[in-house]
Amino acid sequence: MSDVFKQLEKQSQGSALSLEDALNNLTYNEAGLIPAIAQQHETGEVLMMAWMNRASIEETLKTGQVCYWSRSRNSYWRKGESSGNQQTLVSMAADCDGDTLLLKVDQKGAACHTGRRDCFYNEIKVDGLTINSDPIQDPNQLYQNSKA
Amino acid sequence: MSDVFKQLEKQSQGSALSLEDALNNLTYNEAGLIPAIAQQHETGEVLMMAWMNRASIEETLKTGQVCYWSRSRNSYWRKGESSGNQQTLVSMAADCDGDTLLLKVDQKGAACHTGRRDCFYNEIKVDGLTINSDPIQDPNQLYQNSKA
Repeated sequence: MSDVFKQLEKQSQGSALSLEDALNNLTYNEAGLIPAIAQQHETGEVLMMAWMNRASIEETLKTGQVCYWSRSRNSYWRKGESSGNQQTLVSMAADCDGDTLLLKVDQKGAACHTGRRDCFYNEIKVDGLTINSDPIQDPNQLYQNSKA
Repeated sequence: MSDVFKQLEKQSQGSALSLEDALNNLTYNEAGLIPAIAQQHETGEVLMMAWMNRASIEETLKTGQVCYWSRSRNSYWRKGESSGNQQTLVSMAADCDGDTLLLKVDQKGAACHTGRRDCFYNEIKVDGLTINSDPIQDPNQLYQNSKA
């Protein structure tokens, strides 16, 4: 954890830091990425987790449309660019040690590339895994103009 | 993504897999870890993100008390062991590509080691970072019998 986030731990509500200092002191992994959890702002549904780099965080804050970094495509991933299912940013927060982001968003349609509302449909119990939801949109329709 | 999770994508609600097959086919990083998001089950608050290995997932499922792997201490981290603020598991789910877990939990007291209810108190906007909550418990009291 950076010293800056260590110092923030003991500060009170309302204490502030510049955007530059905040983004410089997040902990990025060896690929320059930080995990970002997307949560539907008014229902609390956890929709997905993906990765951002510093530039995608800055773009997201400036445009208000969530932009991740795709590790599989090795490129910016402007959520909804292919599918039309954009994520509009409502708020962004870093955790205590500055190595994870929480994005509260307004998700249009399905967040998951399978066409399901969210990605966490594989429920795991001591007796096994069970799929607990079905698609709300046809994934073949979502990506008909794209390979992704 | 494992072929097993790739196949699950196209299956319907109710489709099932053994626990052994599920845990064997999750994607662990080079340290054998998978990120786990903890969410308060009835309010939807995202409390924290931490890491689990296969053995800590199995322990959590069997005991119903959340056990992570601490990367800083390089040991099992039975949440609440030092602070008394346990996380009781309500449900666990893996995402579409099997590389992230979502734990719905019942969190006793503060989830954050700073004494705040959750770890995501560093709000980031285009004009900077602002702390948006204060501790609900004194961290010096929480960890008075421990170094962590």
